Amino acid sequence: MQVLKDRIVQEGRNLGKGILKVDSFINHQVDPGLMDACGAAFAREFSTCGASRILTAEISGIAPAIMAGKHMSLPVVYARKTKPITMPDQVYFTVAPSHTKGNMVELIVSPDFLPRGEKILIIDDFLASGSTILGLVRIIQAAGAELVGIGALIEKSFEGGRKLLEALGIPVISLVCISSMDDGKIEFSN
Amino acid sequence: MQVLKDRIVQEGRNLGKGILKVDSFINHQVDPGLMDACGAAFAREFSTCGASRILTAEISGIAPAIMAGKHMSLPVVYARKTKPITMPDQVYFTVAPSHTKGNMVELIVSPDFLPRGEKILIIDDFLASGSTILGLVRIIQAAGAELVGIGALIEKSFEGGRKLLEALGIPVISLVCISSMDDGKIEFSN
Repeated sequence: MQVLKDRIVQEGRNLGKGILKVDSFINHQVDPGLMDACGAAFAREFSTCGASRILTAEISGIAPAIMAGKHMSLPVVYARKTKPITMPDQVYFTVAPSHTKGNMVELIVSPDFLPRGEKILIIDDFLASGSTILGLVRIIQAAGAELVGIGALIEKSFEGGRKLLEALGIPVISLVCISSMDDGKIEFSN
Repeated sequence: MQVLKDRIVQEGRNLGKGILKVDSFINHQVDPGLMDACGAAFAREFSTCGASRILTAEISGIAPAIMAGKHMSLPVVYARKTKPITMPDQVYFTVAPSHTKGNMVELIVSPDFLPRGEKILIIDDFLASGSTILGLVRIIQAAGAELVGIGALIEKSFEGGRKLLEALGIPVISLVCISSMDDGKIEFSN
């Protein structure tokens, strides 16, 4: 997706160790118009997937997932990292290692919003090692729901997550794919 | 705003102690179409406020703020509750008591996205005691930026936050106002 790639070229910063700083338009400051365009792109890519609900993880997955949900007229559920007092005691719960934080992140979803048999599309900001997305996949499986697709704004293909996700046999779409961040550069493969 | 009030009547639950459960359409599952309509309502209410940026707090302020930003063509900054590794060492920082969690919440904003002199519109999901929004106000003041308005999806007027915010001399708009949650009921004043 050219407009997203252009923005990464203009404003993204390679902080080393595979960490891409995009906090001027995705994950601290957000450009709503750009996210709207990304949501429209996801809606085109997944127009035939039959999803009845979108699942993402707080925090930075929320903006692209909500814009995709708007274009697809689907509700969006975001996995919580802490259990709010308004959530029932019985929840779907898993932990996933966080690449950028170096710790384990909890992912919590209320069974109310993940009914058995539901067709779920996962949307997130990054596809890197795949660990957060695989955490969401485990929750979908625990709920007896059906995963129908995975979409990410930015893939870092050198971290290998795609191989793990493609084994699930569903479409995995990234709007922009970064193939290398060696030597302070940012190289794209699509 | 009738469509939001109708949704609270249909799906909101009064959990007691002033806690309103709206996790089927605002803060765990999100209805993107409803949030889009709320964003359009904020854009109408604040059409002459001159804002150049929107500030909100993660997590549940993100959806309404992004939709308002889309309709107003403004960037949205969300205060982080933990400092990510991509954020500079020097930040704006404050703490605010969390009514629903019973602890203190940290609010952290990078100076990169809150320049001196900038005109800031605050958008959040709830206006209750006002403590989170007042935390955002302190950050705006610390940055030397100018607060031009405050918008919330749902006000709980019986918690008194409006009085504290109106002292700031700027418009305070809630799309729906709940005047009482006594005796398990939800009573509206607009």
